[in-house]
Amino acid sequence: MTPFEAATRAIIAAGTRLDRAGLAPATAGNYSVRLPDGTIALTVSGAHKGRLEPEQVMRASPDGIALDGKRPSAETLLHCLVYAVDPTAGGVLHTHSVTGVVLSRALAGRQAIVLDGYELLKVFPGIDTHATRVAIPLVENSQDMVAMADSLRPLLAAQDPILPAFYIRGHGLYAWGRTLAEAENVVEAVEYLLACEWETLKLERRVS
Amino acid sequence: MTPFEAATRAIIAAGTRLDRAGLAPATAGNYSVRLPDGTIALTVSGAHKGRLEPEQVMRASPDGIALDGKRPSAETLLHCLVYAVDPTAGGVLHTHSVTGVVLSRALAGRQAIVLDGYELLKVFPGIDTHATRVAIPLVENSQDMVAMADSLRPLLAAQDPILPAFYIRGHGLYAWGRTLAEAENVVEAVEYLLACEWETLKLERRVS
Amino acid sequence: MTPFEAATRAIIAAGTRLDRAGLAPATAGNYSVRLPDGTIALTVSGAHKGRLEPEQVMRASPDGIALDGKRPSAETLLHCLVYAVDPTAGGVLHTHSVTGVVLSRALAGRQAIVLDGYELLKVFPGIDTHATRVAIPLVENSQDMVAMADSLRPLLAAQDPILPAFYIRGHGLYAWGRTLAEAENVVEAVEYLLACEWETLKLERRVS
Amino acid sequence: MTPFEAATRAIIAAGTRLDRAGLAPATAGNYSVRLPDGTIALTVSGAHKGRLEPEQVMRASPDGIALDGKRPSAETLLHCLVYAVDPTAGGVLHTHSVTGVVLSRALAGRQAIVLDGYELLKVFPGIDTHATRVAIPLVENSQDMVAMADSLRPLLAAQDPILPAFYIRGHGLYAWGRTLAEAENVVEAVEYLLACEWETLKLERRVS
Repeated sequence: MTPFEAATRAIIAAGTRLDRAGLAPATAGNYSVRLPDGTIALTVSGAHKGRLEPEQVMRASPDGIALDGKRPSAETLLHCLVYAVDPTAGGVLHTHSVTGVVLSRALAGRQAIVLDGYELLKVFPGIDTHATRVAIPLVENSQDMVAMADSLRPLLAAQDPILPAFYIRGHGLYAWGRTLAEAENVVEAVEYLLACEWETLKLERRVS
Repeated sequence: MTPFEAATRAIIAAGTRLDRAGLAPATAGNYSVRLPDGTIALTVSGAHKGRLEPEQVMRASPDGIALDGKRPSAETLLHCLVYAVDPTAGGVLHTHSVTGVVLSRALAGRQAIVLDGYELLKVFPGIDTHATRVAIPLVENSQDMVAMADSLRPLLAAQDPILPAFYIRGHGLYAWGRTLAEAENVVEAVEYLLACEWETLKLERRVS
Repeated sequence: MTPFEAATRAIIAAGTRLDRAGLAPATAGNYSVRLPDGTIALTVSGAHKGRLEPEQVMRASPDGIALDGKRPSAETLLHCLVYAVDPTAGGVLHTHSVTGVVLSRALAGRQAIVLDGYELLKVFPGIDTHATRVAIPLVENSQDMVAMADSLRPLLAAQDPILPAFYIRGHGLYAWGRTLAEAENVVEAVEYLLACEWETLKLERRVS
Repeated sequence: MTPFEAATRAIIAAGTRLDRAGLAPATAGNYSVRLPDGTIALTVSGAHKGRLEPEQVMRASPDGIALDGKRPSAETLLHCLVYAVDPTAGGVLHTHSVTGVVLSRALAGRQAIVLDGYELLKVFPGIDTHATRVAIPLVENSQDMVAMADSLRPLLAAQDPILPAFYIRGHGLYAWGRTLAEAENVVEAVEYLLACEWETLKLERRVS
């Protein structure tokens, strides 16, 4: 099995699970893996992520140019941004959830989703206690991917260590890890924590 | 495989997924595919959509008359309406969800469910940005299908392009696409957005 | 396949689905089928309904006496009550849900869960329009099954036609039909409607 | 099959189900079985519980020392505590849920989660009626497992019979039983009841 074939298989399996978890409605989302030669295996535009066929995974250059004539998603540039800014990133997942979207909209004006005191924060690199606070960058949605990448680049580069997640308001989550499996763990942990925040917000009726 | 057999297979597979997603309680819902000769493959009345057998998919004329002696759902007329009004429609799905029903009832008096600013709105034809507003027609429930079709016809025909979804208050969603797969994407996107609206309504306690 | 074997198979399949739907936590619930000779196939006490083994389905007389030395659930008497009161009943399902339990407790003092105007009410016998109101009997929980059966008997017998469902406060749902499949449709429809009521109650904050 | 192999198989099967139920996000949770010789089979640190491989189940001494060179979770000490305090314990499950976490945080300052009047309380040993009240110990989260075990020991030892569950605030549930299957029943029942409490709290807006 070539690295591209292994990446394709991992992407398809992740898609099945993310769809079952309600994180891949319609054709939303896109997933990628950085290959040993620096190129990127990623889902094509317009495919349903819960029932991906192998031919719906394509290959792109590090700056997002298709290498096999297939059509990449417009958001490919954000995957490229992550790989460029975080040299440890090996897999990137972009997912959509109801709770994340409504929470990000309820936090209008805020530039971060602050998560405080949860045991599950330990999923993030360099964090070994719940007694901490993590601020997930929350950026405005845009159809201009170059502009969105430009605004995210300094924000991510300023972090040390880089927090492997950011959220686009009213849109969805980007999460990554050294491997696609690690990225999926970040997705699961962040979506769980966003659900905790949303449930708490419904109870308390004020942003803390 | 004949077009009817292919349609039957697609309908059964969609039913399994829609049931798993909680969109097909009891025997609720009905699904159809327009065949190349203009006739319609559709689910019979009273079948559970999550475990359809091939013989529970029947064939009807474009105006909803059974062509094989089986008993169509009373709502077949609404499928016929969609195919008559929208020549691009190739598949129609009618589903039921808790969030859609309670939202449509909370919006008593309104004639549309307005969705504003969501990335997922891009699932609709002709929409390529989240910075827009989509109004899904919301009509009163009735057991008189001829009357319901009569009130929906001008409403749909006045749209350009036609929005491939409408909602019957306290009842459920109709969604369609060029193929059954596209119709299922519309169902997933709309149900996701209705859930976003319902969650937000619970938080804000006022219809925006 | 004998009627008992067919009933066992149907009960196991229903248990798998009800567990997946969150309606069978721990060992809660019990399911039965009336056999052609009037005896009852039903789940033994203490089994997890989501992973039933054939030997966890037993046989009892119409008044709930074990016919094969296995131990029936204490609630067997309520199954017997249903079969005695409703001669058309062929299968009975007793399930537990979070929304049903919290709704039934929030309706403290009420003796019915009133469902008004929902399309899905058409699942009940004799109802062919959403423009109606159905009152599901809501009785107090008790560990005295004889007393509970005694209080339910006149209540059910007074209905015409008999509504194939009642709810025990803080405990769970009993639903039935001519077949186990029909009983499962009633469970799905009622749980869906209870969820609608609970969601609406959270929004409106007052019992209508 | 050796007892260790049987325990491994049971742990993997439980993990698949708990993950599907949303109780095992990312690599959260750990599961164990006490073997006939008093040693413990338990999940290694950092594995995803929904897709465990046999080599991700390790063996430890009764005081939590690895017997096979694998790396146990830091929380192994809490499993050891349960086995030491409750001689009937044969399996321990530690799970994470959104509702449990938000409820435990909303109950800031409380030292128990009180469950009152639910039929499902009968899952606990020695309880044969819903007309009772059960207080699940609720302790503060800590990264110091020795300290946490020290504070839990007297609390559990003072119970008679021992209630096979405690909750760590903002973190998750520990539940156990004579077998792993019994522990899973306790998890399902407690998570169901915590969800009931959380839903009721959202409706009533005050801790009862």
